[in-house]
Amino acid sequence: MTDEHDVDARRRDDDTRPSGSARPGLFITLEGGDGVGKSTQAALLEQWLAGRGRTVVRTREPGGTDAGVEIREIVLHHRGDIAPRAEALLYAADRAHHVATVVRPALERGDVVLQDRYIDSSVAYQGAGRVLDADQVRELSLWATEGLLPDLTILLDLDETSARARLDSSRTRYDRLEAERSDFHARVRAAYLALAEAEPGRFLVVDASQPVDVIAADIRRRLEDRV
Amino acid sequence: MTDEHDVDARRRDDDTRPSGSARPGLFITLEGGDGVGKSTQAALLEQWLAGRGRTVVRTREPGGTDAGVEIREIVLHHRGDIAPRAEALLYAADRAHHVATVVRPALERGDVVLQDRYIDSSVAYQGAGRVLDADQVRELSLWATEGLLPDLTILLDLDETSARARLDSSRTRYDRLEAERSDFHARVRAAYLALAEAEPGRFLVVDASQPVDVIAADIRRRLEDRV
Repeated sequence: MTDEHDVDARRRDDDTRPSGSARPGLFITLEGGDGVGKSTQAALLEQWLAGRGRTVVRTREPGGTDAGVEIREIVLHHRGDIAPRAEALLYAADRAHHVATVVRPALERGDVVLQDRYIDSSVAYQGAGRVLDADQVRELSLWATEGLLPDLTILLDLDETSARARLDSSRTRYDRLEAERSDFHARVRAAYLALAEAEPGRFLVVDASQPVDVIAADIRRRLEDRV
Repeated sequence: MTDEHDVDARRRDDDTRPSGSARPGLFITLEGGDGVGKSTQAALLEQWLAGRGRTVVRTREPGGTDAGVEIREIVLHHRGDIAPRAEALLYAADRAHHVATVVRPALERGDVVLQDRYIDSSVAYQGAGRVLDADQVRELSLWATEGLLPDLTILLDLDETSARARLDSSRTRYDRLEAERSDFHARVRAAYLALAEAEPGRFLVVDASQPVDVIAADIRRRLEDRV
């Protein structure tokens, strides 16, 4: 039991914070459907940031901590369905623990946190894609993290037919979420784009059908004056 | 994925509902610290209810479902601390799944659900006993359960010294929560009593230092005209 949660007042996004952030580190998240190239871009970005002398913490949700790995197991591979609100709460629990024990300490040290999926995944997948209200899912995540939002969110945008084709060629086994039907992915993509439109100051939307090095250059350009 | 969650409108406690409940079943919860005799009273009450022709579903939180057992493992026995908000969210996830898949279906069949610990445990243990705000913990549980509150909550009240003495004589191993220090239990007890005072229509407070059969008779008297 620690009191670390009381130290940091809840921060809300106001589209002005990224340039005047109080924390010394930089919090970057990668978003988009499965198969859009998040891992590839994260690796390239990590390399570039390291080359500029920054300490990079690469992490992911769900499953970025030991407890998170166990939570991820329950969510993704549990036999039998998990009730929708239970699923949302499990993702939020993973996030709360991950932010408290990994992300915030790294940001306070001044590191760059480069994270695969965060709050926007929850809103896009659980809110827009499923039966829950997107605003409630967002509120849940903000409660879990005491309002921590990324300085930059890179959305790798790809139409779902191309994304599915990439996945089919690279994998043979799907987990439960990936097995959901294709119109689900269409709704997720639309939800992501709506989130980006609502917070242009936080989002960078990149056309993920472009060559890998073109995408990487886009991302570096956006970060050039921040690192 | 089901739509069952949309069927039942969110119910808020208004202290008039228990006598005019819309659901055919009866939802009874047992609350109080460890060692106060909840299991003993649940067994006696189950017997009595069965004798009056009622179908009884005995269940508990955390861990009343398969997924809940796994969640309980993470909360109670994970090595290393779980962040406080993560812990609250895990309990809420267990509750959401349990209510959706066990409690509501039973109540809709007209059964009596007899449950060891529910929303008041979360408020008393996590809210009052720890660093989280009790109102927020309550709101989280109400979101998880779509506002399901018990028809009757039996609070077995015992001063923490007596409770601890009972536990010490019956067990050798404590889990993480039970190992917390004694003033924690004092705060939990005070929180329980405050909850009971705020909702007298839902609570029955029983002095748990009385003989087992006296307590059982108290409880039956309260339920006499309901079953």
